[in-house]
Amino acid sequence: AASAKIIDGKMVAKEIRDEITTEVSRMKDAIGVVPGLAVMLIGERKDSATYVRNKKKACESVGINSFEVRLPEDSAETEVLKFISDFNDDPAVHGILVQLPLPKHMNEQNILNAVSIEKDVDGFHPLNIGRLAMRGREPSFVPCTPKGCIELLHRYGFQIKGKKAVVIGRSNIVGMPAALLLQREDATVTIVHSRTQNPEQIVKEADIVISAVGQPDMVRGTWLKPGAVVIDVGINPVEDATCPRGYRLVGDVCYEEARKVVSAITPVPGGVGPMTIAMLLSNTLTSAKRIHNFQ
Amino acid sequence: AASAKIIDGKMVAKEIRDEITTEVSRMKDAIGVVPGLAVMLIGERKDSATYVRNKKKACESVGINSFEVRLPEDSAETEVLKFISDFNDDPAVHGILVQLPLPKHMNEQNILNAVSIEKDVDGFHPLNIGRLAMRGREPSFVPCTPKGCIELLHRYGFQIKGKKAVVIGRSNIVGMPAALLLQREDATVTIVHSRTQNPEQIVKEADIVISAVGQPDMVRGTWLKPGAVVIDVGINPVEDATCPRGYRLVGDVCYEEARKVVSAITPVPGGVGPMTIAMLLSNTLTSAKRIHNFQ
Ligand SMILES: NC(=O)C1=CN([C@@H]2O[C@H](COP(=O)(O)OP(=O)(O)OC[C@H]3O[C@@H](n4cnc5c(N)ncnc54)[C@H](OP(=O)(O)O)[C@@H]3O)[C@@H](O)[C@H]2O)C=CC1
Ligand SMILES: NC(=O)C1=CN([C@@H]2O[C@H](COP(=O)(O)OP(=O)(O)OC[C@H]3O[C@@H](n4cnc5c(N)ncnc54)[C@H](OP(=O)(O)O)[C@@H]3O)[C@@H](O)[C@H]2O)C=CC1
Repeated sequence: AASAKIIDGKMVAKEIRDEITTEVSRMKDAIGVVPGLAVMLIGERKDSATYVRNKKKACESVGINSFEVRLPEDSAETEVLKFISDFNDDPAVHGILVQLPLPKHMNEQNILNAVSIEKDVDGFHPLNIGRLAMRGREPSFVPCTPKGCIELLHRYGFQIKGKKAVVIGRSNIVGMPAALLLQREDATVTIVHSRTQNPEQIVKEADIVISAVGQPDMVRGTWLKPGAVVIDVGINPVEDATCPRGYRLVGDVCYEEARKVVSAITPVPGGVGPMTIAMLLSNTLTSAKRIHNFQ
Repeated sequence: AASAKIIDGKMVAKEIRDEITTEVSRMKDAIGVVPGLAVMLIGERKDSATYVRNKKKACESVGINSFEVRLPEDSAETEVLKFISDFNDDPAVHGILVQLPLPKHMNEQNILNAVSIEKDVDGFHPLNIGRLAMRGREPSFVPCTPKGCIELLHRYGFQIKGKKAVVIGRSNIVGMPAALLLQREDATVTIVHSRTQNPEQIVKEADIVISAVGQPDMVRGTWLKPGAVVIDVGINPVEDATCPRGYRLVGDVCYEEARKVVSAITPVPGGVGPMTIAMLLSNTLTSAKRIHNFQ
């Protein structure tokens, strides 16, 4: 039986980190500026702490400065806003990232809106999303995970223009911006969500599928068009007693079935995951270059 | 043969204008405030002049104050910006509209961005579009033409949730925001554009079609699913020697063919056209209510 090409996000992310390392040192040599990323973690969530640690490590690996602020769960919103305002004004900081989710007593919109649009490397500001949606406008930053999906398609040379693309999921941070990006590249895009009827029929038409749902193995082999290209954003823990931690991670797409049908697919883990952090580094570099007018 | 229900935009627009008239006088009686719309026309384009005149007349018909500024074609951009800035500060003005297209020497982005987001009744500001795209956010204003399309579906009681919808065209002012609105109402949306392959196959799947292309009679009867609902935004002049002006207006959808296939359709003219101005009045009223905290 035919077997799909595996889209190796880990390898591509490494490639991109190497490119960023080169650029960071070129910038430092030329104008003495090192890009800086500020990361704020509020509260004690273990998963959030892990993400923040990984981001910090990734910064180090490419020579980007990282600044970390950790605040206790019961901090006041005004305290968080004060730090953001200081980072907005700090010339050593070119990107500001507030790790989500925030403690329940805080207003996410207030906090995210406080981040200067010039330093919003997550690209979640509505002004950025508006520009992403509009023809003839350019967002300052593209959200990292969807940008990583498109970057994988580019680096593997898959054509987007004129193709039928289906995005499953429409969240503000993945599905919706992924659809806008595909649209900008002239795909014909359909968004499938929880209210969609007969999603399998719609997905079956797609040359390109990006899935960001959060349901383990939801997309079966029979849902996929032979020869399609699949980008699986989902990261879903499923119980597995044979694994050291008692669970393993799977995507939204049933990998074993899909690889017999499609022409290319991202694995989980090792697909989109590593790309997200690489894109964060890329956005931080872009920001520093823009602020210092360095080409 | 079956024949489609005609979606009477002229009638619905009249209904909406009557509702607005009532609200405007209730507001005036209660707090002594009359909503005001400022319209700027730069240059001598005849079609633009007609649109501006119609907007002014529509304001009068519902009791909304209108303020008109006409500037010559060769005005400086700074002059236009000065008027916008004055309108931004003027408490009698609740909506500001700059008639497009602008003279070539002006920067459309600069000028549209100068309109205060609180008075951007056209809803074209990227911040508005971003909020429209994002779940959990509310735009201050929804662009008038797409809002009119959805309003027609609502007033005629057509269900949107769970339906397959196709929007043909993806302009910033009609197609793209129409798709975002349908998406917000839980339709499964596909956007068809000039790079789409086999558009007829995609359109044929749709329960709801909104067409905003600008190509006379492009969508044939054979493209449409029996029973579909069609909103035709296109307004296209075609030569016709039997008409007094030598031309008549047709939509993007071949009306004579479509009405034998679909369950409901808007005529051109008399469909979406009158709704656009009604939505402009509605946005202006909403703005005045919001600024004066009047419910
Ligand atoms: N690789 C990476 O770096 C990242 C991975 N992720 C992973 O991606 C996945 C999605 O994340 P996120 O976008 O934040 O998730 P959200 O929960 O915010 O959004 C999920 C989306 O999927 C839709 N959905 C849910 N159930 C179904 C269904 N049965 N059929 C069709 N659509 C459905 C929802 O529809 P509706 O809108 O109607 O509710 C919603 O739009 C998760 O597994 C997450 O862990 C997320 C971010 C980064
Ligand atoms: N009723 C009303 O009040 C209003 C009516 N209109 C009318 O609506 C129509 C569209 O207006 P507007 O949105 O401003 O137009 P634009 O010219 O800005 O956009 C047209 C869109 O149609 C797409 N398109 C062009 N040709 C084809 C084709 N052959 N197949 C599929 N898609 C195609 C274009 O695709 P691509 O992006 O790939 O170029 C583009 O996205 C016009 O007739 C206009 O007069 C407009 C505003 C208000």
